[in-house]
Amino acid sequence: MTDITNVIDDYIAAWNEPADDRRRALVARTFSEDADYLDPLVQGAGTDGIAAMIGAVQQQYADHRFELVAAPDAHHDRVRFAWELRSPAGAHVATGIDFATLAGDGRLRSVTGFLELPA
Amino acid sequence: MTDITNVIDDYIAAWNEPADDRRRALVARTFSEDADYLDPLVQGAGTDGIAAMIGAVQQQYADHRFELVAAPDAHHDRVRFAWELRSPAGAHVATGIDFATLAGDGRLRSVTGFLELPA
Repeated sequence: MTDITNVIDDYIAAWNEPADDRRRALVARTFSEDADYLDPLVQGAGTDGIAAMIGAVQQQYADHRFELVAAPDAHHDRVRFAWELRSPAGAHVATGIDFATLAGDGRLRSVTGFLELPA
Repeated sequence: MTDITNVIDDYIAAWNEPADDRRRALVARTFSEDADYLDPLVQGAGTDGIAAMIGAVQQQYADHRFELVAAPDAHHDRVRFAWELRSPAGAHVATGIDFATLAGDGRLRSVTGFLELPA
């Protein structure tokens, strides 16, 4: 059983990891094998699908960083958390709210992202 | 296919409906037959289970009102929205963030509630 705080930290680390092999390892540690991800812009399924999806997003936001805004809020097998995307200069680009369900071993089973663009 | 704004309006109306038969009718219009609801405090499944769950919550918050805070945010078959619970005098009691997946006909299939208690 994996602690949810560690899972979400590794999830954010995966979004920030430029090396394909290390990113895939983080995705494998964070998501169950049958996991899926869906937000308004992109989607992916399975370890390889999600790792490739993150890599494609990184291509669009070179050298940007994802940061967790606050500790995740969890109950039962559900969790929500917020993150920010920052430019290389530190400017706020977007805020996201992710909602996820957990697999029996505590990894992410299904993640839905919502986006709040800057006003 | 049901419009998501109407579904969420009916969902809030169900939480505010004290009459068992009218509340059950609102739940049937809002949720698919195999739907489930889960928040940190209560859970329910199916039309009758969810209608009874809401009735039990109403017993604890007599004459309180649920109000939608902002228009729902939806993409694909996913939606999120926020509501507030107000006392009969209008005082803010709690804020909730609900996340839901939709059935094929546009009704709610699975709702997860998170609570933000006043600071």
